[in-house]
Parts: sequence; structure tokens; C-alpha cells
Amino acid sequence: MAIIKHGLKAFSMGIDTHQEPVAYMRQDCHICRSEGFGLNTRLLLATEDHKIIVTLNVVRNESFSEEQIGLSDIAQQRLQCIDGQVISISHAPIVPSLSYVRKKIFGSSLNGTEIAKIIKDISNHQYSDIEIASFLSACAGQRLNIEEIVNLTRAMVSSGKKLVWGDHKRIFDKHCIGGLPGNRTTPLVVSIASAAGLIIPKTSSRAITSPAGTADTMESLTNVNLTLQEIEQVVDKTGACLAWGGAVNLSPADDMLIRIERALNLDGEGQLIASVLSKKIAAGSTHSIIDIPVGKTAKVRSLTEAKRLSKMFTEVGKACGITIRCLLTDGSKPIGAGIGPAQEAKDIIAVFECHSAAPQDLRDRALFLSANLLNMRNGCGLEEALEEATSILYSGKALHQFNEILSAQGGKKTLGAAAYSHVELATKQGTVTEIDNRKLAKLAKLAGAPFSLNSGLRLHVNVGSNLTPGNRLFTLFSESQGEMNYALDYYLNNIKMFKIEG
Amino acid sequence: MAIIKHGLKAFSMGIDTHQEPVAYMRQDCHICRSEGFGLNTRLLLATEDHKIIVTLNVVRNESFSEEQIGLSDIAQQRLQCIDGQVISISHAPIVPSLSYVRKKIFGSSLNGTEIAKIIKDISNHQYSDIEIASFLSACAGQRLNIEEIVNLTRAMVSSGKKLVWGDHKRIFDKHCIGGLPGNRTTPLVVSIASAAGLIIPKTSSRAITSPAGTADTMESLTNVNLTLQEIEQVVDKTGACLAWGGAVNLSPADDMLIRIERALNLDGEGQLIASVLSKKIAAGSTHSIIDIPVGKTAKVRSLTEAKRLSKMFTEVGKACGITIRCLLTDGSKPIGAGIGPAQEAKDIIAVFECHSAAPQDLRDRALFLSANLLNMRNGCGLEEALEEATSILYSGKALHQFNEILSAQGGKKTLGAAAYSHVELATKQGTVTEIDNRKLAKLAKLAGAPFSLNSGLRLHVNVGSNLTPGNRLFTLFSESQGEMNYALDYYLNNIKMFKIEG
Repeated sequence: MAIIKHGLKAFSMGIDTHQEPVAYMRQDCHICRSEGFGLNTRLLLATEDHKIIVTLNVVRNESFSEEQIGLSDIAQQRLQCIDGQVISISHAPIVPSLSYVRKKIFGSSLNGTEIAKIIKDISNHQYSDIEIASFLSACAGQRLNIEEIVNLTRAMVSSGKKLVWGDHKRIFDKHCIGGLPGNRTTPLVVSIASAAGLIIPKTSSRAITSPAGTADTMESLTNVNLTLQEIEQVVDKTGACLAWGGAVNLSPADDMLIRIERALNLDGEGQLIASVLSKKIAAGSTHSIIDIPVGKTAKVRSLTEAKRLSKMFTEVGKACGITIRCLLTDGSKPIGAGIGPAQEAKDIIAVFECHSAAPQDLRDRALFLSANLLNMRNGCGLEEALEEATSILYSGKALHQFNEILSAQGGKKTLGAAAYSHVELATKQGTVTEIDNRKLAKLAKLAGAPFSLNSGLRLHVNVGSNLTPGNRLFTLFSESQGEMNYALDYYLNNIKMFKIEG
Repeated sequence: MAIIKHGLKAFSMGIDTHQEPVAYMRQDCHICRSEGFGLNTRLLLATEDHKIIVTLNVVRNESFSEEQIGLSDIAQQRLQCIDGQVISISHAPIVPSLSYVRKKIFGSSLNGTEIAKIIKDISNHQYSDIEIASFLSACAGQRLNIEEIVNLTRAMVSSGKKLVWGDHKRIFDKHCIGGLPGNRTTPLVVSIASAAGLIIPKTSSRAITSPAGTADTMESLTNVNLTLQEIEQVVDKTGACLAWGGAVNLSPADDMLIRIERALNLDGEGQLIASVLSKKIAAGSTHSIIDIPVGKTAKVRSLTEAKRLSKMFTEVGKACGITIRCLLTDGSKPIGAGIGPAQEAKDIIAVFECHSAAPQDLRDRALFLSANLLNMRNGCGLEEALEEATSILYSGKALHQFNEILSAQGGKKTLGAAAYSHVELATKQGTVTEIDNRKLAKLAKLAGAPFSLNSGLRLHVNVGSNLTPGNRLFTLFSESQGEMNYALDYYLNNIKMFKIEG
């Protein structure tokens, strides 16, 4: 009995389905009919060299020939096939680790092996998006115990590459839980700490929902797309780097989980801890501070919550061999004056250059965080460490070190200026009592940040400022008149993002 | 300040994304750039008359013009737009009921209002597939209490239309939890019960993962695509109907939940109970039996589990105003001999016609279930009810009633014959001690069932049969030589689906 080959010709659809490989088949093609394939069926596609699991979308019969199978970008890329190549098609095998997901849904704890298998399969694109969503929902809401979070962290580290730093005994890092516009301390902290002799190979993310990530801000000043080898070279030379983490993908499983987590707006605390720590550990870090801003518009809203999170970070870190110090900081208002990559870079440069007009809040936070890193190095007093950090900044050593890093990463870019700007003035008398961080962030995004590096805004006031009509509130920057109009229109409809009282 | 209209021209992609509306936009189009839209962003699309929420997929820049927005079938259908029409595009508003999903994930119980809002939003296509997956995962694993299941049932009933049966005090129904190939008792039970005077407006589903659903089997004999009005007419005339439930969509929310539940292979018991009961209640039923086959290859595997499920069905039913009687039945082996729509129809006709060769197991189950319905009507003894059912069958009244129903639904079709058949013979001596129901179902599906109504298979043995080499095991039916070869190839690779010992 001859085996009928179930094959169709590959055809690139040009659709980005991110990490979930998708195939498109005609509903009347002989394979859909004979196998009973329909929408969302999970299929195994194979060439002679590669096999992948995909989710099926069914297309109308006129879309392409019934001899063809359409592939999304990630499907084509993972199958490494060219248009016209025959792809064999069958039902996807059952992914055994999905039974552990079910086990978790049904309330049981998972052991290390089970978690490792789930994460391995997710990294290998064996899970569909809805299966990842199911796993995340089963783990969110404090449903992971400490042991599970430890195992999840380890599994995520194992899913990617790991940087090794030879003879160095201590490798430092810093992280911020996020949520505050303008809170761009990383370039300052990394420069101060490495000027003091600490090794701090920092990788950062780009903005996803905010007007700038550290990687976007740094991109307005230098090249951030470093390979692992380039990161090693820069760190060898300067003791530090300020690179984009996405280019090296130290924790590939995390990338896939975070995407779905964001779409679901789920802040699973176990997931968060494993996500942060796995990247630190993969970067070879042994000591890290974690900045947890606490405030009603920040990510963490109460002190109780912050303390609980802090304790878990420390415990899980310890079990995974990394020393974590969490710092609870004021999360009540925006930091600095610039929002958007180039505007934030401007604030940072002003702090480095010790301008009298440099944002004090940004400088003070950076010094506080740096002092904590220095204190972790050799256990000197925190006050002494703060003096050391301050002296490094004011002596110009931090700026020198920052320029060394930029130079090692490919040179310093000149900050650009936006094509359009608009100054918005206060129309009433009073004191600014609140700024809506979320709306402010949206205003900067509508103006074009972070895609246009020079777009964004500059605050001329902050919480506590006293205003009279005609005072400048903020300047908006954009690269097109259309974006400027759109952003201003949003502002005029949301004028209460600045609460002015009295 | 003029508002810049965020509009692109509609363009039909011809992609079936089932219930999740999807839009396709170029990554370089001005709207993606200025709004920061990316893969999986939730968007609000609007014409002058309609608004929908969609999930964004990003396409490569050469795929279509940057002035266009591609729409999946369901997106186009719900937006009711034509190609070229300008669609306005903005960020989707936050769907408030998602905060209740988060509440459930975090371990709290939901009240009736909260559940009602979730189900309403799901029915209105406000949830993405991953959001539905998250909701289901949060509710699965016995995480819904009885009150939540009651509220879920009520919410699902409210999401669709409801049949009303005037003066009739009692409206009957039957349901099977499923899992056993060939267990096609519904046409027999409905005919016997309605011949006895019961009102039983039965709607059934098509196969999704099995070789036939009752609607597929009935389709080989008559028209099953009835509108609500036609169902009322048929029931007015005959006291019963055997229609496809999908055509009337009595519980639209259920359709959306079941699709994701199946993809996740999640049998959430709360979800299952609400799904079954909401359809019964929407069909106007006041009394229903539920057949729960128990066996190691059936859906319910232990008596404990079956009893627990049975208790919950009864309790939730009571709270929702419907009397439920669960019947635990033997789920250890296939029922009847035919698998696939026409082959199952053949068995049913043989039982109706009281052939000596008609499958006794199918007949006995149908009589047992019918007796329970009759017993629910007037509380006569079960033995007496069984006598009545048996007499209705053997007197030909059941067959007559069945033909009345077929005639009211549009007439009786002649059963077709498959183009190809193949008889597989036993090659060894012994007794059949086990049949793998799942593999048997797959064999019938590979031969073409249920898409080709005449494809499938006929068992010549069952568990307990004694064989000598050369005895017929089964006959396979298909409409093409290719499907026949493919199915046989599968059989030869899975020959142990029949366990023959001794």
C-alpha cells in the first residue's frame, strides 16, 4: 500500500504573526477535506530538513491555488523553505507538556522537570498563542509558589544563551519595575558604577507601551544593536555596556510569554520575577538592585505589595544564586522633564554635565541607586557610597566613562531636533497637584515617540509647580504636522491630565 | 485644530478567522507608525453605521497599498463594509469586563452581574481568542462554584434567542456527554418519545473531532438546516424535530467558548454544564435526560467523577428551572456497527425496522433512555415505561413517527453508497478484548467522514467477538481511492487498535 504524500507547495503570505507560526490553506484542498482540518487545527509541517508545528487559518477558495499552502513570516523562517517547495502536512503530534499546563489549571503544583518541559516547548514554538495564554492564566494571581518561581526562572535561563565573565567574581546589574515616565536612570547608574570599577553589562528593552525604553533613549545617542560578542568586547574595554537586550535575546521564552502577558494585561508576579531574574542570570550577573517605584499611578501601588514583591525577588534570587536588593522608591510623579528618546537623553546629558538646570530628581535617584550598587560591592556604608557616587558624577568621571561606553559601542551620535514643536501655556492660576502619567505618556506617543527618536515632549512644570496664566506647561515635539495636530487634539480632549488647583 | 481622520480603505483578505475579527495593516502605514500599533494590538474599526474591535496582524509592505486595511471574513461581515470603503481606526477602548476575568484569575468568585457582562462581551466579539482562553483557564479545574455555574448558564441563555412553546407545560430533551463512536441513539429516542406524546424539539451538533455528530447522521437522511420558525412548524406538526443546532445558534456565546475550549483540550466541568444546560433552556425544555457513558476510553472515566457531574447537572438545572435526570451508562466499547453519517443512519433504520441483524446494544440503549423520558412525564414505573417504549418501537409506531419528522423537515433522502469499499480480514485467532475508540474514530475520519456522508466504516466485530483468520474485521468506505489508501495506511500502522488475545 503506497503512502499518499500529503504535500502542498509553500507560498509566502507576508503576514507577521510574531512567534506563532500560522499556515493558510484552502478549505476545499484535498488535505483539509480528507484530514478534516479546519480553523485552528494544529498541524505538523515538514520539509526534508525541518519540522514545525503551526496553527491553521482557512482561506477562501479564490485566494490562491489548491496546490498551495500559505505561510506566515515566522512559519516560513522556521521551516526555512522557499516559495514553491513541497511541504508535507499532517496532524500535529500531541505536545506532552500541555498535560502539565492542565495539571496546573486543575490546582496542582508543578515540579522542576514539568516546568522545564513547558518552557522548552514554548521556546521551540510548540505552543499556540491560546495555549500560552492558558498557561499564563493558570500561573497568575499568586498561583505559583516560591519553588515554582525558582524553577521557572531556571527554566527560562536554560532556554537561551548565557554570558560568562571569566575571572570576575561579581557582576552587577540594575533593573526598574517601570511605570514612571522619564525615569531613565540606567545610563547614569551604569556609568557611575562602572567608573567606580564595577562590571555592569546592562541590556535593556525597547518601549512596548511607553514613549521610550532605555534602549530607545540610548539609540538616540549611539548604536545599541550589539551581538553577544560585541557586548563582551565593550564590557572588556569599559567594564559596562548599554545594549538592546532584544538583539541578543538572552531569554527567548520570556519574549514569548511577555507578549501574551501584555496582550492580556496580566501582571503575574511569579512570571514577572522569573522574567526579570532570568535575564539578569543569563547576562551573568551575581548582584542586582531592583528599583520598585511605589505610587498610585505606578505599577506597584501599595507599600504592602512592594514589600511582598521585594521579599520574593530576594528569596528567588538567592535560590538561583544571585543577590538581589530591592529599593522602594517614590512613584508618585514623572521624573525629569523629557519624555521620548531624545528628550530623555537630553536630561541625562544635563545630569552628566552637572548643569544647574539638570533635573534634580533624576540625578538624585541615579545617585541613590548607584550608591546601593557600590555598597553591595564591598559593604562600605551607604552614606560613604553615596559620597563616592556623587564625587564620580561631579568630578566628570561619570561623563568620561559614559563617553567611553558610547565610543566602544560605535561612537556618539549628535542629538537631533524635531521638525515641529509647539509650546502649550497654562490658562489658569494655581498649583499642579497631580499629573496623569498614563495620559502624559500617550500624548508623547501620539506625537511620534518612540518611533521618531526626536518626538516626545518636555515638561516645564511638575507636581508642586505654581502657575500663572501664560506660564509654559510643556513643549511638544514631532516630525510631522499631522502627528502634532493629532497629539494636540488628544491634549485638548484630555486637558485634565494636569490637575491645577488653588 | 482639525482632527486628522485615521482612515484606511477596506480590503477583503479572504481569511476565515472564525469568531475573532482580524485586521491586517502594513507596518509602515502612517496609522501604525503614529499610533504605535503593532502585532496583536486591539483596534476599534468604525464605519458610519458599525463599530467592531479587531486584533491586528502586521503585513509586509509589499502585500498591499499603505492606504489599505485588510479584513478577515468575520471582520468584514460584522463591519458590513465593502472593499474600498474608508474605515476609521483607533485604539480599542478597554473592555471593562476583562477586569472580572482578572478577578477570577486572582481567585475571587464572580457574581451574576459580572458573569453576565463577560458573556455579553464575548458574544459581541469584544474578546480576542487569547482573552477567551484566559477566561476559560481561570474557570476550569473545578474553579467555578455552583452559584457561578448557575449564573454562567443564565448568562449564556441570555446571549441568544429562546424558543417558547405556548401552552405545553413540559418540553423534553435528551443529551449525551459523548465519546463513544456509533452511540447515535437520539433519532430513536426522539421518535419513540414523541410517538408517546412527548414534545421534544431536539437540536444537535455536527461532528467537530468525531466521525459524525447527530446532525451529520440526520443529514444523510433529511434536511437539518432549519430556521427557528421551521423548527416551530415541524414541532407543531409532529411534536418533535431533529435539527442542526448550529443553524439556529441558540447559545452564541457557547459557540465561541467551545471552539477555544476544544483547541485547549480543556474540559472545564462548569463550562460543560453551562454549555449543555443553556442550550436545553434556550430550546424551551423543562425536562431532560443526560446520558453519561462511563468507561476508560469514554469522556468520563470513573464512577466517582460521573456521580459528581451528575449531582452538579441536577443542582444547576434545578436552580435554572429545568429538571435533569443523569443516566450513567456503559462506556466501555463502541455502540452499533456503523461509524460515519450514512453507516450510523443504516443502524438506526435497522433498529426502527426491527431487523433481526439490527445492533442490539444501540436498540437497548435507545429503549432505556426513552423509558426514562416516559417515566419523567408521568412518574409511571420505569419497568412499565420500558414496556411502553418497546411496544412503540416493535409496533412500528416509532418508525412511522420518524418518517413523519423526516417528511416535515423536507422529506426522506435515500441513503447513498460510497464509491470505494475495502473489507479488512482478521489475520489471527482469538477474542477481541479491546477496541481503541479514538483510533477507530480517526480511521473513519481519514476515510472521509463526516465531510463525505457515505464515508466511514462498519464493524463486523466488537469487544467479545471470537475470531478465526479470514473473519471480517471491518469494511471501510470512502469516496476516493486516495482517502481509502490513506486510511488503510493509517490502519496498517495502528493495527493494534483491535486487541485480539487468546
